[in-house]
Amino acid sequence: MTAKTLDVVGIGNAIVDVLVSADDRFLADHGLTKGTMALMDEHQADRLYASVGAGLETSGGSAANTLAGIAQLGGRAGFIGRVRDDQLGAIFRHDIQAVGTRYDTPAASDGPSTARCLILVTPDAQRTMCTYLGASVGLDPQDLDLDMVAQAKVLYLEGYLWDSDDAKRAFIAAADIARAHGGEVALSLSDAFCVDRHRDSFLELVDGHVDILFANEMEITSLYQANSFEEALRQVRGRCRVAALTRSEQGSLVLAEDGTHPIAAVQLGPLVDTTGAGDLYAAGFLHGWTQGLDPQRCGQLGSLCAGQVVTQLGPRPQVDLAALVRSQLGQQL
Amino acid sequence: MTAKTLDVVGIGNAIVDVLVSADDRFLADHGLTKGTMALMDEHQADRLYASVGAGLETSGGSAANTLAGIAQLGGRAGFIGRVRDDQLGAIFRHDIQAVGTRYDTPAASDGPSTARCLILVTPDAQRTMCTYLGASVGLDPQDLDLDMVAQAKVLYLEGYLWDSDDAKRAFIAAADIARAHGGEVALSLSDAFCVDRHRDSFLELVDGHVDILFANEMEITSLYQANSFEEALRQVRGRCRVAALTRSEQGSLVLAEDGTHPIAAVQLGPLVDTTGAGDLYAAGFLHGWTQGLDPQRCGQLGSLCAGQVVTQLGPRPQVDLAALVRSQLGQQL
Repeated sequence: MTAKTLDVVGIGNAIVDVLVSADDRFLADHGLTKGTMALMDEHQADRLYASVGAGLETSGGSAANTLAGIAQLGGRAGFIGRVRDDQLGAIFRHDIQAVGTRYDTPAASDGPSTARCLILVTPDAQRTMCTYLGASVGLDPQDLDLDMVAQAKVLYLEGYLWDSDDAKRAFIAAADIARAHGGEVALSLSDAFCVDRHRDSFLELVDGHVDILFANEMEITSLYQANSFEEALRQVRGRCRVAALTRSEQGSLVLAEDGTHPIAAVQLGPLVDTTGAGDLYAAGFLHGWTQGLDPQRCGQLGSLCAGQVVTQLGPRPQVDLAALVRSQLGQQL
Repeated sequence: MTAKTLDVVGIGNAIVDVLVSADDRFLADHGLTKGTMALMDEHQADRLYASVGAGLETSGGSAANTLAGIAQLGGRAGFIGRVRDDQLGAIFRHDIQAVGTRYDTPAASDGPSTARCLILVTPDAQRTMCTYLGASVGLDPQDLDLDMVAQAKVLYLEGYLWDSDDAKRAFIAAADIARAHGGEVALSLSDAFCVDRHRDSFLELVDGHVDILFANEMEITSLYQANSFEEALRQVRGRCRVAALTRSEQGSLVLAEDGTHPIAAVQLGPLVDTTGAGDLYAAGFLHGWTQGLDPQRCGQLGSLCAGQVVTQLGPRPQVDLAALVRSQLGQQL
């Protein structure tokens, strides 16, 4: 087993988010399904952008948010994902490095611009995402820093990468390397529509390559085409070392070797924007996991991080997350 | 007098803000004076950016914030200022148009990139700004939409423009056109250091060309090199039609033909970030003024808008400002 100099390394789309307010009518008029992610080409994305209100820009990307969160918690984090050498790419790079995440993937010097995600936040604090993948789909095996992957205790993959064939290949290659070096592989299913697009591939991956699985209720029921959450639970149990299944305000359920642990949701203030809730749950969970906490404590840490990020606009905690954890969960971390 | 199809037209630097948290130690280490604006070249700006934490990006610019605010209040607003045809320029253009402000200044197709302002927000909610003016200094008289200026009831100028010779010339030309068409001219002194750099020029402008003057306590005492706010008051009284002098949590003082009106500060929630407080005070005041309110009511409207923007991160209200005004000040607007 390779010496582990990093706790978690993530591979994902490198995205800058544009957060705007919208109402249910706007979603309906544009054929968008609340709470999900829709892919767009650049022309569609530009047209939609022209029809929304003033925005707020912030670095995003599902796995990138998770790895930024782990770094904020004090973990040793690395991220692999591709931006273009443009202004948004520079913002993405700055922000993830600024919190202490190692990020060395070279920027593309030609081709599509840095990925953008238009996030429509409705008055109920739900987020609906419209993503132009841009430069991020160009990630391929040669962009992988294999040394970094080998040095990680856990390799974390976001399901969204499945929407790009190059990225998917890079992804599977990385999982094999991680395991060959004694690391574990974690996967987030990302989005119910994404699961629907790539179900067979995900089913095979979960059975053969994944140690830690993250999914919300919609995603796990979609994966197993189950009629209920309970049926999905029966299906997933035992297929990977641990499955952390999130259920919004109902908290989460952690299925582990030591049993099934219901974890309460944490509410730290008024709900503002759910963007990043799943990403930060994964950050807290994986940070706990790589620090040796038991699965239940990992879930509690995930719940706390998710509970913070939903009280603000945007997916990267704007507070001292490590200090918050110390004040809420004590000094164990 | 030309028919007025616009209430307020503003000329200013077209800037995208990068908001980051910093502490007093960081300001001291970098020789920055809290609450002021420092100009930087691109190299200095990049170096400073590399040393700060993760940011949040939002359209900014002092006059641009004011004109966006006026449009949000329901006023007919126009803005003139220059961006580059880059990603940040596209964000600036989108955001100001999305709230209903007319903005037609063509983007530069070469030369420096869109202006950026790194705004360091300290735990006391004060903001300290470091600006790379980039493409905005290229504004010159030929960029002025003279028709738009002629159509405005009030032309609003930000003092920051004095830091560029081209912009300053454009500025004075615009003021002459506005007055020739029966419009009024409003000026914000912007920043105490800026006043210090251009004192003679501002003194001459206030005496000869300005109807409505906005300044905070530091700026007005700097303008007249006064030993106290009271001395500055004596100096400014009678030099322009109305002077609205802001004093942070002490509210503001409106010196008008119908008397001197002390206006209380408005506190709508915990103080988060003072970025945009002066800009939104001017927005509320000018919106009231162009709707025919008396000076005291204009000051109250300014106070309310400033009171909102300091409860959030960033200088553009993320709420329905018109609805807020209706709920707080009644149906007059």
